[in-house]
Amino acid sequence: MTKRNRNGLPRVVVVGGGFAGLNAVKSLAKVKPPVRVILLEQHNYHLFQPLLYQLATGVVQPADIAHPVRGIVRRYRRASVRMATVSGVDLDAREVLTEEGARFHYDYLILAAGATTATFGIPGVEEHSFPLKSMPDALRLRAHLLRQFELADNDPAQVDKGALTVVVGGGGPTGVEMAGALHELFKHVLVHDFPDLDINHAKVVLLEAMDHLLAPFHPSSRQHALDILRKRGVEVRLGQALERATAGEVVLKDGTVIPTRTLVWGAGVRANPLADVLGLEQTRGGRIVVGEDLSVPGRPEVFVVGDLAGAGDGKGGLLPQVAQPAIQEARHAAQNIERTLKGEPRTGFTYKDKGIMATIGRNAAVTELPSGARFKGVLAWYMWLALHLAYIIGFRSRVAVLVNWIWSYLTYDRHARIIVAVEQQRRPALAPSAAKPAVAAPAPAEAATDRPVVG
Amino acid sequence: MTKRNRNGLPRVVVVGGGFAGLNAVKSLAKVKPPVRVILLEQHNYHLFQPLLYQLATGVVQPADIAHPVRGIVRRYRRASVRMATVSGVDLDAREVLTEEGARFHYDYLILAAGATTATFGIPGVEEHSFPLKSMPDALRLRAHLLRQFELADNDPAQVDKGALTVVVGGGGPTGVEMAGALHELFKHVLVHDFPDLDINHAKVVLLEAMDHLLAPFHPSSRQHALDILRKRGVEVRLGQALERATAGEVVLKDGTVIPTRTLVWGAGVRANPLADVLGLEQTRGGRIVVGEDLSVPGRPEVFVVGDLAGAGDGKGGLLPQVAQPAIQEARHAAQNIERTLKGEPRTGFTYKDKGIMATIGRNAAVTELPSGARFKGVLAWYMWLALHLAYIIGFRSRVAVLVNWIWSYLTYDRHARIIVAVEQQRRPALAPSAAKPAVAAPAPAEAATDRPVVG
Repeated sequence: MTKRNRNGLPRVVVVGGGFAGLNAVKSLAKVKPPVRVILLEQHNYHLFQPLLYQLATGVVQPADIAHPVRGIVRRYRRASVRMATVSGVDLDAREVLTEEGARFHYDYLILAAGATTATFGIPGVEEHSFPLKSMPDALRLRAHLLRQFELADNDPAQVDKGALTVVVGGGGPTGVEMAGALHELFKHVLVHDFPDLDINHAKVVLLEAMDHLLAPFHPSSRQHALDILRKRGVEVRLGQALERATAGEVVLKDGTVIPTRTLVWGAGVRANPLADVLGLEQTRGGRIVVGEDLSVPGRPEVFVVGDLAGAGDGKGGLLPQVAQPAIQEARHAAQNIERTLKGEPRTGFTYKDKGIMATIGRNAAVTELPSGARFKGVLAWYMWLALHLAYIIGFRSRVAVLVNWIWSYLTYDRHARIIVAVEQQRRPALAPSAAKPAVAAPAPAEAATDRPVVG
Repeated sequence: MTKRNRNGLPRVVVVGGGFAGLNAVKSLAKVKPPVRVILLEQHNYHLFQPLLYQLATGVVQPADIAHPVRGIVRRYRRASVRMATVSGVDLDAREVLTEEGARFHYDYLILAAGATTATFGIPGVEEHSFPLKSMPDALRLRAHLLRQFELADNDPAQVDKGALTVVVGGGGPTGVEMAGALHELFKHVLVHDFPDLDINHAKVVLLEAMDHLLAPFHPSSRQHALDILRKRGVEVRLGQALERATAGEVVLKDGTVIPTRTLVWGAGVRANPLADVLGLEQTRGGRIVVGEDLSVPGRPEVFVVGDLAGAGDGKGGLLPQVAQPAIQEARHAAQNIERTLKGEPRTGFTYKDKGIMATIGRNAAVTELPSGARFKGVLAWYMWLALHLAYIIGFRSRVAVLVNWIWSYLTYDRHARIIVAVEQQRRPALAPSAAKPAVAAPAPAEAATDRPVVG
């Protein structure tokens, strides 16, 4: 079911509806001469990933941070959405292939399929850890955590087996915010829910292989995060790497065994496995090599942006896989398409650093601006809150999140601490053969309705 | 793991945390002499069932209508919660048995396990319909509905195969409110999300075997509901019963075939299958026969309340399986326990009718008071809204639902129209042998965490 140009306009296909993909669609809607835009997204929502840890800890609800992607894209003329999981690209035929069987022809392609979790091949992490990259990830972790407390309440012997111990792998911004949020959930909320449990037995262990937290930050910010977490009661273990994980424990390189059933994995990201089946040159971490104009060498009609792109930081390294580079790259790729359509030369992408920030917990965060200015504590926390609110899509979600924050702050309540089982996430592992599947008919709906629609 | 009295207080076990169970706990907390109360609930939340159809249609989010049961019960002294699925009762030993293996001794027992969906043995309904009694039910229906639109958008040939047709079975209050809400979702919301689909092909068919909707209501209310639904575009088929259902169609008794993949089943309720394994006398619909004091004949220490109870309406019939009888029965059972503890005689339960209401959709409802007063249209709708708000537990949820209602009303938005796959609901079918299981050790947590925790 190849779909060719309608109205004779150049057709741009965007793969992925995260920060990068949505900003590409938004910028492309303003391009002159106009183009037709098709956004392919495997979910029917745009997920605001930075607040996933708040979904996992019951502060916010799913639709507070997941915005229906059709509700966003319908604002833009000549743009439309198809819910589809991309399985490969036929670069010569200029067609995007999908698991559903449909193919989408493009004149220009913007790949923005994002990243997944990297387990670095550590034994047991793939099978026994909880990643935090998707909504099902967060909901699954939330249900699992709450269930461990219920199990321990029914059978206190479970506590010594690690039911109330959470190990967070990775002391970057993700691990730090998760550790802080979990600790607050345990000591301020669940302590009241489970009066028969000795909540002192509930503990959060944060593992970091380096000798400091928050690697991208200034030493004083790193120290602040460490001091706050330790003061509040998180067990931070620096310079300790994970050897392996099982269903019942994690083992560190130094031989330490920590009984736990909950290893939250925030130690690394890797490009979406889609990158591995395209036959394109890749960087470390599986990202796709791009030129200065953000297109693929030898394929000027194919752009890669966001976490999937191996865009240079101008200092010989790669840009971090966070929101700001993704947004800026997406806009730049759209502008380069416009330049090409106008017959103008493309320009090289330069990242405009807007600073970095990480939250540690209640009233505590660190923020660093490109000017060198650094903030910590309550002020940095307010900056973090304001910035994240501003980037959430949709007035309604913004208000909902703000209200939830105020509520949680004042009452120490986590209203969404409910156990709802989501389907086990399908691992995003594409077989190399998926790059060139036979043209299949769309799956019968009867079968499709019972398939996992997440992942 | 039998648990006996702590503090020497009489021990009351309440099974089920719905309207009946929670009101029992609340009333028991005030009983003098005091009793110790254990609430057993298979979920970790109290579900406000009347708004499940709004969860299924994207108006509200899960935690808006699901309140953590521990957050409620911790308000009451001498009351506690265990998350457990009750598999039977050893009436002679006075022990409640659970699937988790734990046993709970009681001096008094209040069974409030509620009801499930009745399919009346119609072929295919069990396998192919969507019930609406639990949170996973509602989330599964929401994901399925939205997915049908996505499928049709990718492949318009799906429309003729019934992708955009929903058949609602049963013209009682549940079916009427569901049909109205679905129609609004299609014609006011999804019509904008799917500009390439001809939304005229999306239709809602409401089936009712009797020749009128809303059987418990006055003929003028019934007619009003029918007029409103038909005027708005719902295809109401009266006097038409379902012959069978398959994955792709429903067949009516008169031979009519309606292609559809979505049969929403609101045609009947049946007592929780727990009732079938207790060896107690049952009424039609599987409810447990109770005496006037709401206890089981011959078992004065066992009370049954709510949808599970076959309490008489004083006119030779049974009370309807809705919230008001459940609440009143629960309070009465608690009072009868108090009377027994004081050495006073028990009293017979009399239901105080507070009237009935049903919503049809935007600005439309019907309300009937015991005085004979009847309201319809906008006024009845406001009454419906106010009453339902009042019965939601928790200030926060009440505000959240109110804000969502106002938002949906003003913007025609359904913010929670996101596809999140929940685990297939475990059917609540207990084998008769479950009444007397061997005393099993608690399941290992490793296994338990992968089991469905819903259903």
